[in-house]
This record gives sequence, structure tokens and C-alpha cells, in this order.
Amino acid sequence: MAEVILNSGDTAWVLASTALVLLMTPGLALFYGGMVRAKSVLNMMLMSMVTIGIVSVLWVIYGFKLAFGYKANSQWYGEISLSGLGSAVNELTNNGGVYPIPLLAFAAFQLMFAIITPALISGAIADRTKFTAWAVFVAIWVTLVYFPVAHWVFAFGNKVGDTVTGAGFLAARGVEDFAGGTAVHINAGAAGLAMAIILGRRVGWRRESMRPHSLPLVLIGAGLLWFGWFGFNAGSALGANGVAALALLNTQVATAAAALGWLLVEKIRDGHPTSLGVASGAIAGLVAITPACAFVAPWAAVVIGLLAGVFCALAVGLKYIFNFDDSLDVVGVHLVGGLWGCLSIGFFGSSAINSLGLDGIFYGGGTVLLGKQAFGAFFVLAYSFIATLIIGFAIDKTIGLRVKEEAEVSGIDYDQHAETGYELTTSSSGGFRS
Amino acid sequence: MAEVILNSGDTAWVLASTALVLLMTPGLALFYGGMVRAKSVLNMMLMSMVTIGIVSVLWVIYGFKLAFGYKANSQWYGEISLSGLGSAVNELTNNGGVYPIPLLAFAAFQLMFAIITPALISGAIADRTKFTAWAVFVAIWVTLVYFPVAHWVFAFGNKVGDTVTGAGFLAARGVEDFAGGTAVHINAGAAGLAMAIILGRRVGWRRESMRPHSLPLVLIGAGLLWFGWFGFNAGSALGANGVAALALLNTQVATAAAALGWLLVEKIRDGHPTSLGVASGAIAGLVAITPACAFVAPWAAVVIGLLAGVFCALAVGLKYIFNFDDSLDVVGVHLVGGLWGCLSIGFFGSSAINSLGLDGIFYGGGTVLLGKQAFGAFFVLAYSFIATLIIGFAIDKTIGLRVKEEAEVSGIDYDQHAETGYELTTSSSGGFRS
Amino acid sequence: MAEVILNSGDTAWVLASTALVLLMTPGLALFYGGMVRAKSVLNMMLMSMVTIGIVSVLWVIYGFKLAFGYKANSQWYGEISLSGLGSAVNELTNNGGVYPIPLLAFAAFQLMFAIITPALISGAIADRTKFTAWAVFVAIWVTLVYFPVAHWVFAFGNKVGDTVTGAGFLAARGVEDFAGGTAVHINAGAAGLAMAIILGRRVGWRRESMRPHSLPLVLIGAGLLWFGWFGFNAGSALGANGVAALALLNTQVATAAAALGWLLVEKIRDGHPTSLGVASGAIAGLVAITPACAFVAPWAAVVIGLLAGVFCALAVGLKYIFNFDDSLDVVGVHLVGGLWGCLSIGFFGSSAINSLGLDGIFYGGGTVLLGKQAFGAFFVLAYSFIATLIIGFAIDKTIGLRVKEEAEVSGIDYDQHAETGYELTTSSSGGFRS
Repeated sequence: MAEVILNSGDTAWVLASTALVLLMTPGLALFYGGMVRAKSVLNMMLMSMVTIGIVSVLWVIYGFKLAFGYKANSQWYGEISLSGLGSAVNELTNNGGVYPIPLLAFAAFQLMFAIITPALISGAIADRTKFTAWAVFVAIWVTLVYFPVAHWVFAFGNKVGDTVTGAGFLAARGVEDFAGGTAVHINAGAAGLAMAIILGRRVGWRRESMRPHSLPLVLIGAGLLWFGWFGFNAGSALGANGVAALALLNTQVATAAAALGWLLVEKIRDGHPTSLGVASGAIAGLVAITPACAFVAPWAAVVIGLLAGVFCALAVGLKYIFNFDDSLDVVGVHLVGGLWGCLSIGFFGSSAINSLGLDGIFYGGGTVLLGKQAFGAFFVLAYSFIATLIIGFAIDKTIGLRVKEEAEVSGIDYDQHAETGYELTTSSSGGFRS
Repeated sequence: MAEVILNSGDTAWVLASTALVLLMTPGLALFYGGMVRAKSVLNMMLMSMVTIGIVSVLWVIYGFKLAFGYKANSQWYGEISLSGLGSAVNELTNNGGVYPIPLLAFAAFQLMFAIITPALISGAIADRTKFTAWAVFVAIWVTLVYFPVAHWVFAFGNKVGDTVTGAGFLAARGVEDFAGGTAVHINAGAAGLAMAIILGRRVGWRRESMRPHSLPLVLIGAGLLWFGWFGFNAGSALGANGVAALALLNTQVATAAAALGWLLVEKIRDGHPTSLGVASGAIAGLVAITPACAFVAPWAAVVIGLLAGVFCALAVGLKYIFNFDDSLDVVGVHLVGGLWGCLSIGFFGSSAINSLGLDGIFYGGGTVLLGKQAFGAFFVLAYSFIATLIIGFAIDKTIGLRVKEEAEVSGIDYDQHAETGYELTTSSSGGFRS
Repeated sequence: MAEVILNSGDTAWVLASTALVLLMTPGLALFYGGMVRAKSVLNMMLMSMVTIGIVSVLWVIYGFKLAFGYKANSQWYGEISLSGLGSAVNELTNNGGVYPIPLLAFAAFQLMFAIITPALISGAIADRTKFTAWAVFVAIWVTLVYFPVAHWVFAFGNKVGDTVTGAGFLAARGVEDFAGGTAVHINAGAAGLAMAIILGRRVGWRRESMRPHSLPLVLIGAGLLWFGWFGFNAGSALGANGVAALALLNTQVATAAAALGWLLVEKIRDGHPTSLGVASGAIAGLVAITPACAFVAPWAAVVIGLLAGVFCALAVGLKYIFNFDDSLDVVGVHLVGGLWGCLSIGFFGSSAINSLGLDGIFYGGGTVLLGKQAFGAFFVLAYSFIATLIIGFAIDKTIGLRVKEEAEVSGIDYDQHAETGYELTTSSSGGFRS
């Protein structure tokens, strides 16, 4: 096996993609922040922002090595080591022998995935979570859930010739996941469900209006997420090539179709297509195409996206049936969208491109690929759900997860952060003319 | 003619540019959304967002082939075909023989242009258009207007050796348009004029205040448009090279000069430079430099931009003279700015770089180039205006274009989408301290 | 010395970085705009936006040549010339012999640094500065302060073989500054202090609440700044390589650690971590890692960032001790953060990478490097502070810097721009449901 050499074009695209994926987390903060009531916008945004802080620091200390460090015959986790990435100042041209990009660029790119995954969970427990408890949760959850699961899915062996022994558990079993349908979305979605159950419902849920306080903020967030997601999906090609181009094109058209799908459901069911619908539909499409974006043809991406919009628009009603307050629909969008995306490869996957050379059902390959995908998807779902229940329960019983009821009613922003989002009237006023 | 081979650096830049151009449409949604009254912000933003959905799906089904498919001796449109792009899963290294980037990257990049062009039109018909009628309009308009016009301007032949027979109508006649002054801005501006005429004026126009409800939102939008426009203009070099660098530098300095130009007009005429002025001026500069960005020297870009700011600041007054309610100045900025930009090549174009080897008037080349530019600009203007009048008239007489008057007065957001943009007071209040 | 040739991958990254750095200034406008009261949000944002306009035009006319033009044996400034960049239409492949990118790309990239530096100053003089006086200040300040200082720090000679005679004053003395800790942050911070002193305190300072009017706007701005800063720091490698990857990774982890550091100070001192704290901490980290990002190991970046968050969180209290109204903490964040970042190289710098081959104190290199860094940092501080005092004093005594007191009280937006930021109630209302 020839050693892969560094390529500046591939590196340029991965660096740009890394910046794009970082932006997704502030974008998520806006998307989520706009959806809550005005009295909790800051807490909602801060849950994302502090996640960037915590995960980045842990990544340097041990996270990168735990997720991607090389350990012979270890399919479950990488290297347990406190050094490594932190001292890599003179490894500027090290590409691990397998990447066309510096290992440091790969480390930075993957860090952004490790950040956004726990941040996604926060939407399930809006308006009611103690800020310090959330910070503790993030640190434990990435360590025990994200870093290992990322190893299962994304580690393909980081030494030349060790492509099998170095592979993660699910990668070795042929589960296809191009950019994180399992490790990111099913993972976060299942964890969100667990946390919504542990935290319980918000005061007044289903009785009083909890409508988004600023839909323009939601749309700004959705726009930045869409933009950043091109880095997430097309950057996962780890190079600037035809695979990246296919991933980018598929990401665009699936997302577009999903937005239309959600709007159609609203139009038929409610009579009105909404702005929350177009934003939610777009995110559902982005989620669903994430695992499949480089394994399917553009026509299939349109179908996957359209169905993602329809499925998720229906799935967000599940919480009212099962009576759990998944506040911002992490389950309905990320868990359902992620499952559909992973399974869709079993239907639409083409052997012309995926690494296994297996065709999906619609390309005449039978159910073999679908079986592998289902195994991977439900394995991650189960692990994340159970592990998160345990972590959440432990934190709740020790430092406590939930703010006091009066704080929740009067507003978590002022209670937890001594701030309010907006000061639109000022003492010396005069600033407003109406 | 030597076959062009794939280059990772060029591909990296076009992929990044594609993401940048996608962001322009959410950016436009913010720019337009901030300019309308609070009661119609969502509808305004949704007109852009649904355009992303519709055009992306049509692009896969037939749009890309219609605009860029190869058909021998066809200067007016490309290939009429229902397959093509949709099944291109195994064409990862196909570059059409003429691009240094995968054809799939080119397809994704050009898609973003096809999206933003109809979205631009929406500014002319703010606050009063039925949402479903808008969606129908977009689908028809891109098919009958944008896809053919893009072929006229941007198709240079997609088979080696077919650079003449494969060229679009205007490209073959030597009309220079680097990144879409004709196909995008004149096209959208003329269509906006036609639609503003068909829709008629808003209730209360010129009688009551219709001031922007959130100028910070306008400025966020303008900032994102400026940022994304580097992909639009410099990405049109289809490579990471000196042409792209010149296009980027010219885009920056022309935009800067245009913002100053608009502020100067305001300062002299009104006594106050405004934030709406700096945002509008920047967009005017971006529009004007779009066709010229790679054909002129930086000093000329400054002059083109400065004059664009002045011309457009004056042109936005035309609607009050001719009494048409081009609500957000699509005509004054995109039509006038686009015309000036296209014609400016006839004055400032340098044979050192443009594909014809013709100099503009100020480089001693006489009026030949200006004549070509004028032909292209007015041809697109006339086609777009007439075709849009017909399309708009047909839709108005069938499903109807305009919402009921009471809906317009009480707010189109609630009428069309059953939503309102902001919920800044909540039932359980407490969130605000004033 | 071999001539460096153009590389498309390196060019792609620098073009993308240029776009990213441009975005920082609109991002700064949002960051600053959210922090002021609602009655002055537009003026605050316009100070940044007009800076983009002015500096871009001056850059073409003489700025680029003054900062980076080649003049034999000139360590203090570059070429004094009115032509140059403006006519460079046929220099598409000129890379100056020393860059892997076109000189035009370098010129565009560096322009963005020249823009944001004066824009940063505006935060120190919020709510009270005449708009035209600000515009005049920007033009003079970049000419007399930024362009020369950029030459001192960033000019390494732009002719092959002239690496010494062509070098700027500080570069020649071995002051290490990878992306602008001295030229940008110390420079802007010292100028902000000077201007805050000249302008004097706002009416009502320390007596009435001047809390941020929109913390979501502050967080949007901080998110865009963080995103754009990857271009600022990693783009300064002028190529897509391991140095850029290290710079990007270090930027991320230092910023993350700084956000945590600031939150920790708040938690311990005030009991509440705040959203303003996480945003300010992030910016402090970005500032501090800017000069050091490519000279230190990731573990050191975490330490530098963490301490930056702590130092700056404490430093923003200085204005209350010394009684100067540095309204948005330009001194506390940019001056203090910039000083710490420059000096940190003396502690954590590794000879494995920096251009001098000197180790910092913690790598056993003794205090030589720290001494060079201290010299550079304080030299720029002193020059900027004194020159800005003179410029500010001259403008104040001629056209006047400050608006009338009644304008300041009633709102600078309406006084200077005849606009107000928000129109959330409309005459025909109906748009709001509460």
C-alpha cells in the first residue's frame, strides 16, 4: 500500500471545512436560542457555547487520542493517553501515512464533530437545566459516549497496513456512515431522549404557549447550519475531489427537498406552511443525508431528503403521544432523521462509490447492506440511550440537573446567568420612535 | 486543445465558493427580512428559503442539463433531458474535459446562482404575495427565464473542441459577463420590475411609514451577502489562481467604494449618512462589479463601485417618479447596478485579461466592446421583462398572486403562515426587566 | 534561494481566508452593536462598516504600497507611491518571487487586517462620536499608524534575496508575531485607550445602566468573529499546510480555554457565569493566541488561552479604577490580551517551528525571546498610544470629535443617522400577538 502524501488542495478544503463545522455550533445556538421563550434565550445559547469550550480542552488532553489514537486490535476505543496531540508542535508534516492532509488538520476537523454532538442534545432539555450540571454532563458524556462511538464509526486504522486491525467496531463490520449519521445524530438524538426523560417536562408544558420568541433568529441559525454543513459532509471526504463534490451536491439537494417535504406536510395537515417548518425541514434533510451523502446518486438524495422532511414533520408529534418534553425536537429531527439516513444507504447505496462495493436494495444488492446499516444504527442508539440514562441519573442524584421551579417560571436566564437577553427599553429612552 | 485535468486546489476553492454562494440566499433573506415591517418578516424570509428548495430539486431533474447540457449548435438552451445529473454517482472524476474541477462541483456551484436569482426578485413584491403563488412563479420562472439565460451567458461549450458550437447565444457574440451581471442581476431586476407592475402597490404605500423593522438584521444580511459574494465572483474563475485573486480584490474595493458613494449622496442630499445607505450601497457595488470583476484593474473597480453607489442611490428614487412599488429596490439596485456593471466593461475592460482581447474605451479600444456589452445587457433586460410579465400575468389570472387586502393590513405572516416573527412578551413574563 | 512558485491549494486557502477575515468586521459590528444600548446600535455598527469602505479605497490608492511595497533598506515604511496595486491587472501570476500565492491574493488578505484594526478601536468610544469625525480619524490613523506598523511587523522583504534589507523594523529585530498581536491588537488597544481619554466619559457613565441591548446579537457577532478568525490566524501561514493546521487547532483550543477561563472568574467572583462573559472570553482567547498560534504546542495554546480569559476578565475592571470609559473593553481585551499573547511566545515558543529557532523559557531557551517580544509589544504600544493621542487631539480641536450632550442622551442613531435600529410596533400594527 502506497503511502499517501500531503496535498495542499486537499488540505485547503479540510481547513475551510473545519472552520465551517465550527460555525455550526454558534449556528445551532441561534437556531435553538430563537426557538425558546425570550426569558431563556441566553441559557439556551450558552449551553452550546460552553460545550465548545469544554470539548476543545478535553480533546487536547485525551479526547483525540481516545477517539482516534492507534491501539493495536482495539475496536472499542483508541489510545488512553494524556499526552499526544498536546505536544504535536513539530509534527507539522505528519499525515499518519494515510491522509492527504496533516494529522493536525484531521484532529481539528474531527474536534468540531465532537463539539456539536453534545451541543445538539441541549435542545431536548431547554429552559430547565442547571448550567453547571450541563457542563459536567458534557464532560462526562463526550468521554464515555462520543469519543468511543466516534472510534467505532470513524476510525479506519491510522497506521499504514493496519486498515483492519486498526478499524473501529462498526467500521470493521461494514457499517457505512460517511459523515456521522450514527456517531453524531443518532447518538445525540438518543441521548436527548434519555435526558428529556430524566429531566422531566417543563412547567406549563402543553398548557401555555411556548412559541419561539424570534423566528428570524431561528432562520439565521438554520442558514448558518446549512452553510456549515457543507464542511461537515463534503469535508468528510478529507480532500477536494469528486467525492467531496458529490457529497456537497447531495447535501444541497436533499436539504432542499426536505424543506419542501416538511412544508408539504404542513400545507396538507395544517393549511399553512411555516417558517419553523422550512427551518426544521432543512435540518431534517441535512441530518438524513449526512451518513449517505457520498454513497448515493443525486436523484436518490432528493428522495431521501423529501422523505426525511415528511418523516420528521410527522415524528415531532411523537412527544405529544408519549408525553416527553423533547423541547426543541432533538428526537424527532436528529434521532428519526439520523435513523432514516443510515437505513437509506441500504436502499439507495451504490457500489460504484461506497467502500464496501455493496449495492443497496434499489440497485439490486438485496438486504445485506440494509442489515449492516440497521445493526449500526440501533447499536449506537441503544448504547447512547442507556449510557446517557446512567450518566444523567448519576448527575441528577448528586449535583442535581434541574433548576428550581420558580427560576424556571421567572426565567432561567436571570436565575442562572444574572442576565436577560434583551434590553429594548432604556432608562434614558428616546431611542425608540413608534 | 489539451484536455484540462482535475486539480485539488482549484476544486477546493470552488467547493468553498459553492458554500459561500449558498449562504448568500439566507443572507438575502435577512437583508430583505429586516427591511420590511415586523408583521411580514417571515413571509419575506420564506420567499427566499422556499426558492432554495424548489430550484435545487428542479436543478437535479432537468435544470442543470437545460442550462449547461451539451447540445450541438444550440445557442439558446442546453439539453432537454430528465436524467443526467441525477444519476451521476459514478462520474466522480468527470470534469467535462474543460474544467480543472469535477463537473459535479461545477453543477453545485452553478445551482447556487440559479437559486439566488429568483430569490432576488422577491424584494420587489414584498408584503403582498401569496406564498403558493410565489412558489409556482419560481418554478416557472427559473425554467423559462433563468435556465435559458444562464445558457446564453455562461455556456462556453462543454465538450473539448466545441468551444464555438457549444457556446451560448451571448457568449458566442462576445458579451463579457464574468459572474452574472446579465444572467443574475439584470435578469432579476427586470423581472422584479415586471412583477411590481403586475402586483401593484401595497396598501398605504407612500401614505404610511414602511420603515425597516430591524436595521441590525439588514446589516447582518448585508455582511453575509458581502462575504458570500467572494464565492460568487472569485469562484467564477473556477480555480484558485490570479484571476480569482483579482476578482476577489476588485469585489472588495468596488463594494467599499460603492458604500462610500451611497453615503456621500445621502450626506449631501439628506444631511445624514444612514445604515440602510451603507448596506444598500454595498449591495449596489457588489452587483456592479459582478460582471466586471475579472476584466478590470483595481483602480477601475474603485471607480465602478463609487459610481454604482451614486447611480443606485439616485435610482431608488425612480419608483416614486414612476409610481411603482418596487418595495425593496430590486430595480434601483439590481437592474441599474447590473446595467452599469455590464456597460462598465466597455469603458474599463482591459485586453490583458478578458477572453476577447478587446480593450474598453479608456484603454483605447473604442466602442466595440461597449456595443457588445450594451447588446447583451438590453437583450437580457427585454427578454426577462417580457417573459416575466407573461408568466406573472398568467399566474395572477389563474391562481391569483396577491393576498387579500385585510391580510396585507393585519400582516401577511399571520395570514399566510399562521406565525408572527417575534414573541417578545410571554404569558409567564418575568423575562424582561426594563 | 529558490524562487517559490504558485500553488493552487495554497491560493485556495488564502482566498478562503481572505473572505473569512472580511467577515470579521461585520461580525465585530454585531458584537459591538449588541453591547450598546438600543438607541446607538446603528452608529456602533456603522463605525465598523464605514471603516471597510475607507480603508479599502486607501489600500488601492497608496496603502498596500506603503505597508508592503519594496523600498531598499526601508525598515519603517514601504513604498510611497500613488500607483501600483491599482493598475495590477496584468500581474495575475506575479507572486513576488516569495509567495506560493498571487501577490494580488496577498494584497487582498492583508487589506482585511488593515480594515479590522481601526474598526476595533471604535468600541472604546461608543455612543458619543461624530460619524464624520470618525471617518476622518480612520483615514488618518490607518495612514500614520496602521500602515507603518504593519510594515514593521509583517514585511519580510518582497524581493528574492532581500530578506534582510527588505524586512520591517520589528521583523528584522526578531520580534515574532504570527498573525498580528502587535500590529492589530496592541495597536488597536493602545489607540482605543488614547481615544477613550480624549473623548471622555459618556453622560451617565457609572450612574445609569448601560447594559447590552441584545446579547443574542453579541453572541452572533462572537460566533462570526471566531469563525472568521480561523482565516486571520491560519490564513497567515499563506498556504494550506501543517503550519496552517497547527495555527487553526491552536486558535480553536486557546479560544475555548479562554471562554472557560472567563466563566470561571465570573463563577468564583460573581456567582454567575454570563453570556457576555463567554463571548468576551472567546475574543480574549482569539486575541492572545493570534501572535502565538503557529509558534506553540496545543497544550501551550490551552494554557495561553485559559490565562488570557482570566487576565482579561480581571483587566476589564481597570477602567473603573482609572476612571476612563473604554465602553466596550477594547483595552481590557485587545490591549491586555495582545500583550499577553506577544509575551507568551517568550514562555511557550518552540524552536521547532518559529522562524528564529529560539526556544521560550519553558523550553529551556532563557529570556532572549521574551526580551524581543517585550520590546516589540511595548514599542508598538507606545507608538500607537502617542500617535493616536496626537491624531485624536488634532481632530477634536478642528472638526470636533463628540456629539452634543442632548444627542447622546436622546440617542446617537437618530442624531447622526436619522434612523432608529428597530421599529417593532407599526402604525397598522396587528403584526404582534402577545
